[in-house]
Formats: sequence, structure tokens, C-alpha cells
Amino acid sequence: MKILTILGSSRREGNTEYLVRKIVDGVQHTELFLGDYKLDPIIDERHREGGFNETHDDYESVLEQLLAHDIIVFATPVYWFGMSAQMKVFFDRWSQYLRDERFNMKAALQNKQAYVVTTGGSNPHITALPLIQQFGHIFDFVGMTYKDYMIGNAVKPGEVKEDILALQKAKQWNEHFKTLI
Amino acid sequence: MKILTILGSSRREGNTEYLVRKIVDGVQHTELFLGDYKLDPIIDERHREGGFNETHDDYESVLEQLLAHDIIVFATPVYWFGMSAQMKVFFDRWSQYLRDERFNMKAALQNKQAYVVTTGGSNPHITALPLIQQFGHIFDFVGMTYKDYMIGNAVKPGEVKEDILALQKAKQWNEHFKTLI
Amino acid sequence: MKILTILGSSRREGNTEYLVRKIVDGVQHTELFLGDYKLDPIIDERHREGGFNETHDDYESVLEQLLAHDIIVFATPVYWFGMSAQMKVFFDRWSQYLRDERFNMKAALQNKQAYVVTTGGSNPHITALPLIQQFGHIFDFVGMTYKDYMIGNAVKPGEVKEDILALQKAKQWNEHFKTLI
Amino acid sequence: MKILTILGSSRREGNTEYLVRKIVDGVQHTELFLGDYKLDPIIDERHREGGFNETHDDYESVLEQLLAHDIIVFATPVYWFGMSAQMKVFFDRWSQYLRDERFNMKAALQNKQAYVVTTGGSNPHITALPLIQQFGHIFDFVGMTYKDYMIGNAVKPGEVKEDILALQKAKQWNEHFKTLI
Repeated sequence: MKILTILGSSRREGNTEYLVRKIVDGVQHTELFLGDYKLDPIIDERHREGGFNETHDDYESVLEQLLAHDIIVFATPVYWFGMSAQMKVFFDRWSQYLRDERFNMKAALQNKQAYVVTTGGSNPHITALPLIQQFGHIFDFVGMTYKDYMIGNAVKPGEVKEDILALQKAKQWNEHFKTLI
Repeated sequence: MKILTILGSSRREGNTEYLVRKIVDGVQHTELFLGDYKLDPIIDERHREGGFNETHDDYESVLEQLLAHDIIVFATPVYWFGMSAQMKVFFDRWSQYLRDERFNMKAALQNKQAYVVTTGGSNPHITALPLIQQFGHIFDFVGMTYKDYMIGNAVKPGEVKEDILALQKAKQWNEHFKTLI
Repeated sequence: MKILTILGSSRREGNTEYLVRKIVDGVQHTELFLGDYKLDPIIDERHREGGFNETHDDYESVLEQLLAHDIIVFATPVYWFGMSAQMKVFFDRWSQYLRDERFNMKAALQNKQAYVVTTGGSNPHITALPLIQQFGHIFDFVGMTYKDYMIGNAVKPGEVKEDILALQKAKQWNEHFKTLI
Repeated sequence: MKILTILGSSRREGNTEYLVRKIVDGVQHTELFLGDYKLDPIIDERHREGGFNETHDDYESVLEQLLAHDIIVFATPVYWFGMSAQMKVFFDRWSQYLRDERFNMKAALQNKQAYVVTTGGSNPHITALPLIQQFGHIFDFVGMTYKDYMIGNAVKPGEVKEDILALQKAKQWNEHFKTLI
């Protein structure tokens, strides 16, 4: 089981990343920080004759990493009660590549397991639930297995270190991942 | 009451835009198509000493339009069970400008009325509800009044013209807007 | 297509019932007011040897009506952000009767269409969404088709008569139902 | 800080009750099993001249226990993607007693902390979220503080003992409660 973490934060070393590091501590994995890649928003050309125009950014290298792993840990801060725009760009482009015959994306996704990690403030255990549900609809749609999610309570840098329940959950995932590899 | 429509679709003339046109048909308003502007994703520097770096894109002209209107119609297709990345960029940057003393953004938002228009497939009347709730949390957070929302059932170009209930609702909003101006 | 309305209000002539009457105005249908029946809460004996004890209330006559119709309009006020306890008793007992070989309940439900009507206050278009989602999960679970729902804004007696959008939606459903019979 | 557990299950010794026992293990508390009390569904007479009729069941003794404690652990299995009808009856009757001048219910609730414990199957970490949100709306409405919730994955008797994350969370709450008393 090969593990990929996809981090959609807009800055490094934030609370979400902190949880991710705990989750994969001592576990072989690949880390993908979306901010390191040039990812253009989708131009919806599903209904254009000829389909999507070729794009010229780094999306395909990100996609190849997605497809090459079995367990995907999607990590994003809660920004405005949703995933970061960076991560949303990542998902929006799925509409393009699900139709791209060079990738067998649909079949590949159906064997993958998804985990979601998010952190935020403003009563996140309730207000982040639409985001948790959105991920549920996404994974249902493509047939991925939604294994688990965690919501950390943190706004200021480092604050998640005080969220004992989140840290416990990270440790439990970590122990589970160690048994898989 | 000045009306602004903010369209977050990635292409023109889609189903969402069709509904918006019905909603403001014959009503004086300003139309803002986010795709016409260069809007950079937020780099979260809330916790950086000195705050946010100056940005060099078109965001401030978009923001000025937002602040200059009383009724805001947020229109986005349902992409992957959420708002478009383009519209998410628009909201994410609020984190930056709520702290910018040149704009009195927080106070200004509290007097505004919000409407949401979205269209999608995959049983959108249920699967778009997390998105509808996300808007609810956003408007609550800044004190905007969430007047109403509508979910159109449409994927293919023009398909929303067959969604009679959505068209009726658009007409009803339209009649209401005509009484305001 | 035989139509059944199931009303879970605790009193007659309320706002929810008003909408239901508009929906089936001039349409042949059966009306079922749950309050007219003695319905005991479930005693969960799924895991008891021998299964559920026989019950001695009016549930089976309600169940027979459910099974004998094709379109079911579930109508409940929003009480405490959920369906009425009366209607919840009705659903909870499904756990008992799905296992009762005298009824072919599971297969029967899969051919039925479900509509949901609810009315409430406290910003119901947002705060009733968990209830709308709950119905979605219920219908998914048993394979019923969730055709549509409507949320009326009303607390005081008769107040729903001022909810123009709800009345329009009721009329549209009514016109649709008239085409079916 | 006086702790009350309110158990809305329809049978004793279920998975939900198992979690509750872990949560209050070694902690002084009062246990209230709703099934031990005769609780009639509400007859909505908010709009009746003269208000609610006097009721003749055990509700007031339950209410007095609610009001006499500071921390309330609401525990219900997920039945049909919502709380049990037994627990729903308990909440529905709040509408009656919030208007009863003998009890200062509204003010009393505002100082209370709420915890929610639920267990269920059918992918409960996602499908129970409307229930978790419903509790959020309830607590918001009356001003209670929604401290935390937990969703256990269990259908068969005893199955929750294998839900390691739920057990860990129960232990963490337990340790917190021990510090309060």
C-alpha cells in the first residue's frame, strides 16, 4: 500500500501540515505540496467540440502521483468553510482528466482509499461538516473509499498542538499505516 | 438597492449564467464575471509579521464592486460538489482584505443581502446542500443576510431551460428585484 | 400512480398541512394523518433471539397504506430542526417490518417516489437542511427515488400563505401530479 | 459541575450505552434512561388560546433532572439517520416547557454544556452528520455550548468495542470529566 499526502495549504508549516506529519511519522510515503506546482483553474470544455484544449501546466505530474498511490491523505485547512482554492483547482481538473484516454483515471480511483485532514477555527467540528460531506460526495462519485477524516481545532500557528483529540487520532492513523507497509 | 451578480463559472453562456440572466432580466445591475479578472490564490500571511504582502492582480477592482452594491447574487456551477475554484479564490482573499484598513470591508458586508444560484447534475437538490450550507456559514461569519438560494438541475449546455421550478424561482426573484429599484 | 400523503404534524390544519392540500388539490389521493393512529416507538429487538415481539398497535394498517401507493408525500413540520417524533416513530418501525416476511417491504419501497414537505421558522431554508439530508439518506438506504422537497417558511398558523415561493412550488407539484393520474 | 447522561436507546446494554459507560467510568453522574419514563409526544398547542394543556406523564421529572445538571451527555443510536423517536419526543416537548413559567428553562439551558454520543452503521461517520448538525442547531437555538460529539461505528451488540477511535475518544472525555469534579 503506497501512501500519498496531498497538502492544499497556502503556506508551509501550518497546523494542517503538522497533523499530516504526525500521521505519516515513520511511515514511507510521498508528500505532494500543491503550492509547489503550477495548476491552472479548469476551463470547462466538456461540451466543446473536440473536448478540452491541451493545457500547459504541472497538472499531469500531480495526477501521475495520485494514480501511483493506494492511500491518499487529502489535507487542507478550512478556508471560508471549504477546502482551499488550491485544492479545489486540483479536484476541478479531474473533470478534464477523467475524459483523457491517456489516463485510466476512473478505474484507478476505484481502488484507492481516502483520508481527509483539515484544521480550522470558528467551531470547526460543526462548521467544517459541509466540507467533510463534500469530500464524501466526491469519493462516492468516483468510487474511492472514504476511510476517515479528522478536524483539528486551530487557527494560530502551532495551535493544533493543543488539540489532544486530533493528536490522538493522528497517532491512531499512524499506527494503522505502519501495519500496512 | 444596487444589485451585483458575481459569476464564478469557468465558461460563458452556461446554465448558471442563464439563470442569472433570467433573475436580473430588465433589472438594473452590475455583472461581474470572475474569469475576466486576474485573481491570485491567497497566500496565507495572516500570521506573518507585517501581515499580507501587497498583491498585484485585479482583486481590488473586484472588491470595490462588491462593496459598492447592496444585493449580491453569487452564481457558481456545482463543480465537484462545491463552488468553482475561481469563486473560492474570490472568497479566500477576503481573509486578506478584512484586515486591510483601506477597506472597511467587515462593516460594509453586514448590510448586504446575499443570494446564491447554482446548477449541477448528480442529484443536485441533495448533493449541492453542503455547498448551500457553506455559503450559510460564510454569510453568518461576516453578517450578510442569506436571502435565498436556488439549485438548478442541469449539466449539458442549455439543459436548465427544462428545469421549470428553477425558472419559476428565477422569475419570482426577478419580480422581487423589480420592486426594489 | 397512486398518491399517499403522510402527515406527521401534531395538530391538524397547520402550515404543513396547508401546503399538502395545495399539492394534492383536485388530485385523487389517500391522506394519512399519523396522529389518528396508535403507533408505539420501536423496541429494538433486531438482535433478540426470535426477533421482534408481536406488537399491538395500528402500525400495520399504516404500513399497508404505504405499500399500496406509488408516490409518497412525507409532510412534517420542522420541530427542533428535525422531523416530528410522530413521524420518527413511523420510520423507526421500518427496522421491524423490513424483517417481517409477511410484507415484502424492501422490494416494494424500491419502486416508490418520495416527496418531502416541511415548514418551520428560524431560517428554515438553511436550518432544515439536515432534515432534508436525513430524508435523502433514508430514501437511498431503501432505494426510494427522492423526487423533490420543499421548505416553507412559517411558524404562526396560516403564515405559510405568505410564502409565495412555497405556494408556487406546491402548484407546480400539483400540476405534475395531475398529469400522472 | 454536575453531569447527566440522557440515553435515548430503545434497549438497554447497546453500543451507545457502552460508550456512555466508558465516558463516565469512575465519574460521579446521574444516568437517565428515557425508556424508563412515560413521555408523551407533543401536541402542539403553542397557538392555542390558553396555551398548552396540562400533561400527565413523567416529563417534568425528566426536565427537573435536565435543569439540575451542568453537563449533559445526549446519547442516542442512529436510527434511520436521526436520533431515536424516544429522544425526539424529549426535545419536542421543550417547545411546551420553554413557555412554562414554573421552569426558568431558557436561562438555565444557556449555562449548560452539551456532548453528543451516537452509534450506527451504514458509514456513520458521514451519514450521521445531519444528526450531528441537527444537535448543533438545537444547542445554538437555546444557547447551550456544543462541546463535542462522537460517532461510533457499530450495529451488532458489542460491536463498538472494536471501534478503537471511539474508545479512545471516550477515554479522553472521561479524563476530562474527572478533572471537573
